[in-house]
Amino acid sequence: MKEIGIHAKQAASQGNTLTSAQKNKVLEDLKLNLNQSKQAIFTANQKDLDQATQSGLTSAMIDRLSVNDTYLQGMIQGIDDIIGLVDPIGKVLEKRTLDNGIDLEKVSVPLGVVGIIYESRPNVTVDAFALNFKVGNACILKGGKEAIHTNIIFETIIQKTLIENNLDPHLIQLIKDVSRESTMKLMKMNDYVDVLIPRGSQGLIDTVLKESTIPVIETGAGNCHIFVDESADQEKALKIIENAKLQRPGVCNALESLVVHEKIASEFIPKLISYLDEVSFKGDEVSQTYDDTILAATPEDFYMEYLDKVMSIKVVADVEEAIEHINTHHTAHSDAILTQNESNANLFTQKIDAAAVYVNASTRFTDGFVFGLGAEIGISTQKLHARGPMGLEALTTYKYILKGNGQVR
Amino acid sequence: MKEIGIHAKQAASQGNTLTSAQKNKVLEDLKLNLNQSKQAIFTANQKDLDQATQSGLTSAMIDRLSVNDTYLQGMIQGIDDIIGLVDPIGKVLEKRTLDNGIDLEKVSVPLGVVGIIYESRPNVTVDAFALNFKVGNACILKGGKEAIHTNIIFETIIQKTLIENNLDPHLIQLIKDVSRESTMKLMKMNDYVDVLIPRGSQGLIDTVLKESTIPVIETGAGNCHIFVDESADQEKALKIIENAKLQRPGVCNALESLVVHEKIASEFIPKLISYLDEVSFKGDEVSQTYDDTILAATPEDFYMEYLDKVMSIKVVADVEEAIEHINTHHTAHSDAILTQNESNANLFTQKIDAAAVYVNASTRFTDGFVFGLGAEIGISTQKLHARGPMGLEALTTYKYILKGNGQVR
Repeated sequence: MKEIGIHAKQAASQGNTLTSAQKNKVLEDLKLNLNQSKQAIFTANQKDLDQATQSGLTSAMIDRLSVNDTYLQGMIQGIDDIIGLVDPIGKVLEKRTLDNGIDLEKVSVPLGVVGIIYESRPNVTVDAFALNFKVGNACILKGGKEAIHTNIIFETIIQKTLIENNLDPHLIQLIKDVSRESTMKLMKMNDYVDVLIPRGSQGLIDTVLKESTIPVIETGAGNCHIFVDESADQEKALKIIENAKLQRPGVCNALESLVVHEKIASEFIPKLISYLDEVSFKGDEVSQTYDDTILAATPEDFYMEYLDKVMSIKVVADVEEAIEHINTHHTAHSDAILTQNESNANLFTQKIDAAAVYVNASTRFTDGFVFGLGAEIGISTQKLHARGPMGLEALTTYKYILKGNGQVR
Repeated sequence: MKEIGIHAKQAASQGNTLTSAQKNKVLEDLKLNLNQSKQAIFTANQKDLDQATQSGLTSAMIDRLSVNDTYLQGMIQGIDDIIGLVDPIGKVLEKRTLDNGIDLEKVSVPLGVVGIIYESRPNVTVDAFALNFKVGNACILKGGKEAIHTNIIFETIIQKTLIENNLDPHLIQLIKDVSRESTMKLMKMNDYVDVLIPRGSQGLIDTVLKESTIPVIETGAGNCHIFVDESADQEKALKIIENAKLQRPGVCNALESLVVHEKIASEFIPKLISYLDEVSFKGDEVSQTYDDTILAATPEDFYMEYLDKVMSIKVVADVEEAIEHINTHHTAHSDAILTQNESNANLFTQKIDAAAVYVNASTRFTDGFVFGLGAEIGISTQKLHARGPMGLEALTTYKYILKGNGQVR
């Protein structure tokens, strides 16, 4: 593992000197090489699928592992999107001449070595490399053991592409020891790894937060809330809630918990329940008095990210109580208020402590593409470094460069 | 401890709504209250000093604990400087209308709850509060047990000032349980604390990095290097090295290790040694051949932050070897090249992976005031969130606010 760290640091030092044209050339070549290696990819992937079937993985998990031509073309399109993004490196963020004549510049530079720990989706291997390479970072990848053969073939193709371009193949390194121990070691490699990004389930993220001594960017869980205020346009509210809950119930920006103003609860809740007949509801005692299909919510329900056609409901006295309830239970991802009252809207956007706060729109818009950042590495639910959808900039840092002619203090 | 977390989160929610005028008013009142409570401060401080003497602390440590009128006026001047800084909250960092008509704004907001773990210097208590309050953060402070009486009186005066202004006194909370256990608990309070900033020795910082599950901003250690290239102006080099090493040997931006080009080593090293007769040198074998006062350096010497009148020396073949040596041994704080060769200067600034990289100037300039950031919370030696001197901006984050009229995805 130490070897991997040393190689990564050396490779990052090369990555830091590449021009945008050099980087885009490699990514173009990678697209070609992936297309030319289709058969090898499908063969390797079949090994993973066979093992998955033998070990009795669920069909959803097998589906997530599977790489067919459509999936591969999607990955290649992803690389193309990354080629199209502006290179964020070398931007002069600040520039001034100090009183003593020293010229100071603050310049954007690659983060260096980025470790990514993820579960079974094999597209992450290519995607994480392409994003990091575009910035000039070296990446160390620890993927799920279920996808090991597919991940290895992707690493081979990427390293071949790097070598063909006379670059250090260690700009990508896949950890092939699929044991938990190798992940534990990676999380302590402070001398070599600048940041760790876990991508996957809450359990995985919690483990990395707990064990890592390297700075972590936390991504993921979204317990998103919508508050329907007294003055909400109820017809629009039904459509926004339907969209936020049902357009893709399994994603992190989907709605999980509804908060309703008590003055409209008796009218709105029954209307909503008949409108969303696919969804099952778990509510507080007050909400249950308005519809007998609402099950009793436990205190834990209000913390749940169901990722399913289930929603919790809470009735509150006013916008202040709604804010308090949401700030206590949410994961600080995306929350919305539906209201015609501008001062309530402003109070909500000011006081809700989340990456994205909406007025009269669906929480589903929290997304790197929608926010204009291009390809997305993940959605940060922490407040340090990057918050909300992370584009290429989240993979950069800066340094100060100071040029003098003999100045002393 | 959980109580402290809950109170801090509530207080932060109030801090987030304060105007710049309100915040500056409190800081002005705090200056007055500190001056009016001089006697109580000195009495409390005397208790700490008495205990320190009894427990046999070194005179350097007792000195660091001691609060006299000059020290207090320095602290008050520090608050005044913070009042003068521009409030970084509420800045619109980005603004655009999405294709679907939603207005998106990215706005700077307080980080929320900041935990600070520090050693004996009692001025940190007031300083950390003032910086965080200026931004609207609530702070939880764990100071060294040696300063507990002084820290308590400062907390009392600050809380009194907050109450007089009808604000939540929990905007500052000092942990009065001086045991190690309370620090351990603080480091796991992810539900309540947004970031931890350790200020103090490398041992303290390492413990926090290892134990904390909360994001940490690493500050501190500076193993700063200067590389004297073949073409350096040697007269200027002597003055820069003297300044970087001797102006304040105990600070993090002081020079610790010198790297010399082999072509000038035989001339420059003896000249330097006679010029810096207060400094003792530990060098590699080659350097030792040029002066018999140079002691043999162990491999560990090149990693040392001496904070004293001691310096390591390494002779290298060229700028590439210098870069490699420095990137391996430094703490990524501040490094300099002294050269007349522009392409070597550019290679050095590009490839040295440090917060501040200098050409022909002393490393001593790495400082929040010098860099134009105003008061400084510390100097970050990590790459996430903030790098190098951290001003008020390092205590902020941002959120996205999106206003629509019924948009769905």
